[in-house]
Amino acid sequence: MEHQVELLAVGTELLLGNTLNTNAWDLSRLLSGMGLNVYHHTVVGDNPQRLQQAVEVAKSRADILITTGGLGPTCDDLTKKVVAGVFGLPLEFHPQCQQSIRDYFARSGREMTDNNLQQAYLPKGCTVLENRWGTAPGCAFCVDGVHVVMLPGPPRECIPMFREEAAPYLAQLTQGVIHSRTLRIFGLGESGVEQLLRDRMNALINPTLAPYAKEGEVELRITAKADTVEQAQTMIAPVEAEVRGLLGDLIYGADVSSLEEVVVPLLAQKGLTLGTAESCTGGLIAKRVTDVPGASAVLRGGVVSYTNAVKHQVLGVSQAVLDAQGAVCEEVARQMAQGAMRVLGCDLAVSTTGVAGPDSDERGNPVGLVYVALATPEGCEAVELHLGGAAQRRDRVRTMAANHALDLVRRYCQKK
Amino acid sequence: MEHQVELLAVGTELLLGNTLNTNAWDLSRLLSGMGLNVYHHTVVGDNPQRLQQAVEVAKSRADILITTGGLGPTCDDLTKKVVAGVFGLPLEFHPQCQQSIRDYFARSGREMTDNNLQQAYLPKGCTVLENRWGTAPGCAFCVDGVHVVMLPGPPRECIPMFREEAAPYLAQLTQGVIHSRTLRIFGLGESGVEQLLRDRMNALINPTLAPYAKEGEVELRITAKADTVEQAQTMIAPVEAEVRGLLGDLIYGADVSSLEEVVVPLLAQKGLTLGTAESCTGGLIAKRVTDVPGASAVLRGGVVSYTNAVKHQVLGVSQAVLDAQGAVCEEVARQMAQGAMRVLGCDLAVSTTGVAGPDSDERGNPVGLVYVALATPEGCEAVELHLGGAAQRRDRVRTMAANHALDLVRRYCQKK
Repeated sequence: MEHQVELLAVGTELLLGNTLNTNAWDLSRLLSGMGLNVYHHTVVGDNPQRLQQAVEVAKSRADILITTGGLGPTCDDLTKKVVAGVFGLPLEFHPQCQQSIRDYFARSGREMTDNNLQQAYLPKGCTVLENRWGTAPGCAFCVDGVHVVMLPGPPRECIPMFREEAAPYLAQLTQGVIHSRTLRIFGLGESGVEQLLRDRMNALINPTLAPYAKEGEVELRITAKADTVEQAQTMIAPVEAEVRGLLGDLIYGADVSSLEEVVVPLLAQKGLTLGTAESCTGGLIAKRVTDVPGASAVLRGGVVSYTNAVKHQVLGVSQAVLDAQGAVCEEVARQMAQGAMRVLGCDLAVSTTGVAGPDSDERGNPVGLVYVALATPEGCEAVELHLGGAAQRRDRVRTMAANHALDLVRRYCQKK
Repeated sequence: MEHQVELLAVGTELLLGNTLNTNAWDLSRLLSGMGLNVYHHTVVGDNPQRLQQAVEVAKSRADILITTGGLGPTCDDLTKKVVAGVFGLPLEFHPQCQQSIRDYFARSGREMTDNNLQQAYLPKGCTVLENRWGTAPGCAFCVDGVHVVMLPGPPRECIPMFREEAAPYLAQLTQGVIHSRTLRIFGLGESGVEQLLRDRMNALINPTLAPYAKEGEVELRITAKADTVEQAQTMIAPVEAEVRGLLGDLIYGADVSSLEEVVVPLLAQKGLTLGTAESCTGGLIAKRVTDVPGASAVLRGGVVSYTNAVKHQVLGVSQAVLDAQGAVCEEVARQMAQGAMRVLGCDLAVSTTGVAGPDSDERGNPVGLVYVALATPEGCEAVELHLGGAAQRRDRVRTMAANHALDLVRRYCQKK
């Protein structure tokens, strides 16, 4: 049977444009991956009449309804009451939910207010979906052939709850899988990738091959429909081999979400330690490396040398070079990386110095001019980047500079 | 008259989770600012039956329907045909649109294919909305008291077209504005804020008062409907004063999006420079401070001392203390902050040391135990934080630790 899924988000903040509905985006991808077809997204505000009407519309056209938002303790959180009402279910008190809520507050050391206990009221006879990421439990039930799943609104609760609690519940309803493998590419744009692969992309039906532009990177997704994950993987493998033949080391990883997720295990595998010396990226590289669990095994530390004084005094960059050429030049990038290696006692050190914007620097260097260097036991390599154009945003210049720095580390390790 | 707006996005890529519906987010904000109430967002795929049904539902509940997507030249772009059909309008050829499309291709030096001319077919009698950012023209018409506006899907066409072409058309329909002021709160949760303000929240109708949970913070929004922005501001001011009386310095800023956006100008205003010494936050604090343009005037630099060796050798933390108590203790946090002050030559320095997870440290300290310290010319203060609970994610522990550190700086500066 072909299931028809509707995602219904509840929250006036979405209709005011204060919050972006990323849940619909994430859940759609996850549901598609399970072989479930999402046919509608709907958003309504915290208004009982309009919510009720939206639930009735969804009930008439979908057989799986997933709501997000409106489960919290505040008085405008009304999803449970309205949805249960449309499906003819009363709310009843779930003592074990009350205990989970109390435990959550005890664990996090916060004081629980009485209105938090309202969250323990759930539709009669439902399956409780435990919320280990916040206080509002979710639930699932089936009435009149329609499966209803209710999840909280904050993405950091909604998405893990979907993965760990709701997905197993829904998996019973579906046959077959849609399975993807995602190759991450750095160093070639979306249209470049498309040009290289266009013929294959057009020829392929199952699996399919599609590129997606990400912030400064390209994601290439190979997606197969099959009875089992294993079968899908067997269908994907030859396409991946072919793509790898064409793109080579432009592909930095598969089924990873960032360069740092590749760099940290690579460094660990090669037994190398890393240090950073950051000017324009201001700590972003160290932050990204330490986003990855296990970073402590490979990152010794970093220096954010935002001023020339710190570049000179902490990293030992030559004052004469700083005076003559300013902070944004290749020589300063090199001396920063070499200084970090010495000061932090690491095997490899990357550095960045450049103009993140919004304005060009006092020497007239344009926004987006960045030097990145990598110091290694064998020497020091540096690259000059032009990430500019007046319309480039500060955060994009910084992200791209960090990407280039991490890619230098990646390529060095892979050659080792 | 109260208008009811529905935004209808057309595109299978949205339902697959490949594209995030940022148009709904941007348009909602723009429409709210014009005093138009958005009551529904809907997304359907490139399927004529489901699109028709969605248009019929929208026609029954909204008096302004804005569609995005499905105006392009490819065969799955069917919005015009279906929408015009529901409203009983035939499509007719608009010669001036054909000319605009030809001109666009001539200007951009691309070759025009025949299917591009299909875009010159628009509902009979409509107002053409010119597209100077792409090829597909939009249109607007009113039938049976329902105003329909069709815009292209790509955000870089949709949003400027809305601003320059659709907004003037819709402005004729509306009187008044909706204006909000957003207070940002750190140090009290959503339910705590709600408990303090519940009576006022329930009593207020215009302006309204509503709290929203953000990552470790709460946003409190005061929203007024009035004829002009000035009038709305006058209505909001006494409510803000009352809320400030209740919440005091838990409110760290108004109409800002983060602590760092408050901290950077505060430091500049007080003539103070900042430095950072980060262990568990791994560069996140420096990264967040340097996200703010103008950070170079106040941030001297930072040290990411991820290993004990860097804590001792670069920041001068006592080896005896590290050996006896380990890296996660109050004394190390203090010595890190004081060391950073000395090494970086800054007026204030913040430090973090703790267990970000996913696992407890080798001394058995639990995930979420973090010490944050602030060194100032007057001395050094430190706080012990319990951000844990086994389910807390690494990134949340790090974000909260950075929030607490930035809040220490904010409070110090505000008292200065």
